Amino acid sequence: MALDPALADRIATSVELGFAEQVAHIQALVRFGSVRGAEHAIQDHVFRCLRERGYAMEQVRMDHAAISAHPGGGRITPEHSDAPLVVGIHRPRHETGRSLILQAHVDVVPPGPFDLWSHPPFDPVIRGDWMYGRGAADMKAGHAANLFALDALARIGLQPAATVTVQSVVEEESTGNGALMAHLHGYRADAVLIPEPEDEKLVRANTGVLWFTVEVRGTPVHVREMGAGANAIDAAYRVIGALRELEESWNARKTGRRHFEGEAHPINLNVGRIEGGDWASSVPAWCRIACRIAIYPGVGAADAAREIEAAVADFARTDAFLAKTPPVVAFNGFFSEGYELDEGSEAEAVLATAHKRATGTDLRSFMSPSYLDTRVHALYDRVPALCYGPISENIHGFDERVSLASVKRITTAMALFVAEWCGTEALGR
Amino acid sequence: MALDPALADRIATSVELGFAEQVAHIQALVRFGSVRGAEHAIQDHVFRCLRERGYAMEQVRMDHAAISAHPGGGRITPEHSDAPLVVGIHRPRHETGRSLILQAHVDVVPPGPFDLWSHPPFDPVIRGDWMYGRGAADMKAGHAANLFALDALARIGLQPAATVTVQSVVEEESTGNGALMAHLHGYRADAVLIPEPEDEKLVRANTGVLWFTVEVRGTPVHVREMGAGANAIDAAYRVIGALRELEESWNARKTGRRHFEGEAHPINLNVGRIEGGDWASSVPAWCRIACRIAIYPGVGAADAAREIEAAVADFARTDAFLAKTPPVVAFNGFFSEGYELDEGSEAEAVLATAHKRATGTDLRSFMSPSYLDTRVHALYDRVPALCYGPISENIHGFDERVSLASVKRITTAMALFVAEWCGTEALGR
Repeated sequence: MALDPALADRIATSVELGFAEQVAHIQALVRFGSVRGAEHAIQDHVFRCLRERGYAMEQVRMDHAAISAHPGGGRITPEHSDAPLVVGIHRPRHETGRSLILQAHVDVVPPGPFDLWSHPPFDPVIRGDWMYGRGAADMKAGHAANLFALDALARIGLQPAATVTVQSVVEEESTGNGALMAHLHGYRADAVLIPEPEDEKLVRANTGVLWFTVEVRGTPVHVREMGAGANAIDAAYRVIGALRELEESWNARKTGRRHFEGEAHPINLNVGRIEGGDWASSVPAWCRIACRIAIYPGVGAADAAREIEAAVADFARTDAFLAKTPPVVAFNGFFSEGYELDEGSEAEAVLATAHKRATGTDLRSFMSPSYLDTRVHALYDRVPALCYGPISENIHGFDERVSLASVKRITTAMALFVAEWCGTEALGR
Repeated sequence: MALDPALADRIATSVELGFAEQVAHIQALVRFGSVRGAEHAIQDHVFRCLRERGYAMEQVRMDHAAISAHPGGGRITPEHSDAPLVVGIHRPRHETGRSLILQAHVDVVPPGPFDLWSHPPFDPVIRGDWMYGRGAADMKAGHAANLFALDALARIGLQPAATVTVQSVVEEESTGNGALMAHLHGYRADAVLIPEPEDEKLVRANTGVLWFTVEVRGTPVHVREMGAGANAIDAAYRVIGALRELEESWNARKTGRRHFEGEAHPINLNVGRIEGGDWASSVPAWCRIACRIAIYPGVGAADAAREIEAAVADFARTDAFLAKTPPVVAFNGFFSEGYELDEGSEAEAVLATAHKRATGTDLRSFMSPSYLDTRVHALYDRVPALCYGPISENIHGFDERVSLASVKRITTAMALFVAEWCGTEALGR
């Protein structure tokens, strides 16, 4: 049943009326600076925001054993967040519509050197249409949109006529264990929407991601005794070369993969961090790299991991230095498969209609070569998992920013989507 | 005047008698773990050891302005030690001999990962002839030898018949500013001996050393947007390649340099430390390498520095990524010229005789391709600067160790050297 146009207009106007408050709410979220391990304060804030709106509240702690036993569980290291998931549940008086999970993560990646930013990274400055800040786009704007899409209905005396579970998770940037934990705790719905910054498009296909480290150790000596090849930093670069060859062989396998073969370079290996040695005049005895690599949907994380280990081991056997001290590969985060969103679902059709109303354009879909929490719902809940959100620039970079006009559009689309997917009833319990 | 053989025997026996105490003294020095910036406690200990033996004591603080104004001054960064030099001065009753500076440094390089050590690095375990520990060889054994060579004379009722200045310095492993500060403070003598671990050989020629960092900065973005060449860690590796070409061109210049042209690779560039990026899933926006390179005696540090800067800048102009964000080269430590020890000095002849008596072998000399504090005395005091010390293994590496039999031999040689160079008189003031 298509949404009544008059109701659609009232909803759009309501989003408009609440938008100043929504912008202030995003800014408050950005100010938390919630990098990995530092999400307790923001989760408590989210808890208060949901509770004061009348949601039934739950907090869910990470169950390390259950996560570790799951094939999609990210590897748990000492850096893993111990902040809880915060969940607010709306239950209608009459469960007549289709249920929905609205999910977002509060964790953000590190800001990097502050001097590379035009403004301090956790100061949500607005310049023209852009709100700047680490996490402003990825994904505090989306986090706020979940709440304010529902607020827009409440403002006009309505609420969803189905159970809506609003989930605020952690660990999206490192393991995906927040979304997985929500799944393991048993939350289910007929569809899931996660408003990641996707340029107002719907994610059709998504790579899996693995995180791993490689550590090279050698025989440190005074630089006066250095011989070719005994330097762990140099050796680490040779290992990077071998990993780049693996990356190219994986890219060559794009043939026949519908959402990937049109891409120039669908599989990216990123050497995101390096540390080695401790003294300019000592030949470095150790070097450690932290890497992230993508895998195609349908490729198991464990199979990919074995291939990475074998590539490093095979190369090491050919290298005079590394043959003696083989590099150690360890998986330390994401261990996830990718997914494809089946075309033709009701949920997608409802979102497309809502998007068209809110933006005047047809909903386009695309392949995203990065990790997304929607994989949990696509792979393990097996429900339509919609990843769709605002226009942004430079996520994970400096001067990360989100378009506020786009945030308003996608919030409108989300409110329209909720109204049609769940149906509406008069506000109240 | 050659030393009386009977006196020489008495001196050797005296070293033998004091050697158990000397070993315990070295162990006490090793336990201090005196890495850069943490040399205050050991210098206070050295002060007490010298004062209780009756030396006239001075403590000398670093004069940053004077060091910075000197062409051989190492660059002063926040990591620079502010520990004082500790100097003990022996003045004879009758100044009939030749004066001497005995110098040693207390600073040690970082131990690196403890698990690469067979024993904890600051636990001076003895196994057979070897004493293990960071700094045991470089150069706490030599530091102790300065003191115990003089103690050996005192034990048989003698003292040098000339002024002997015993200097305990810092910053030998990073800038050479300790030895330079002693020079700037005005200490002078007819010869200098520094018992670095030189395998019972005399250093004939020594490279200068420069420390520098190169920092590459880029435009960090989410890994989903990564393009070839925008990764600062990859870019840093390309800079290392350009520096390796500079290293090879400097090695090619060995032709015609007497102490160097016979060496396969006299000039070593060491990339001793690397740090870059902060997140596996963010394309790294920065990477910093800390390097050490050697220069031939006679090459000015400032000239070499300009050549390094030019090599990096010239390469950056050819690189699509680096051309936009040129790497920044900074000199952050050693800025020193090398030296050659002229053959035929009286001091060397006296040392050769002493060495022959103590070890039964002829004194050999060699080129050391590493920084040595003797450069201060060779270049700026213009006196015979003798760098000669015990047999060691793995200095700057793990399981650094010094041969105790060798320590005894070189202590004997040093005591014989002092007795002949300075002459002796009856103990007392």
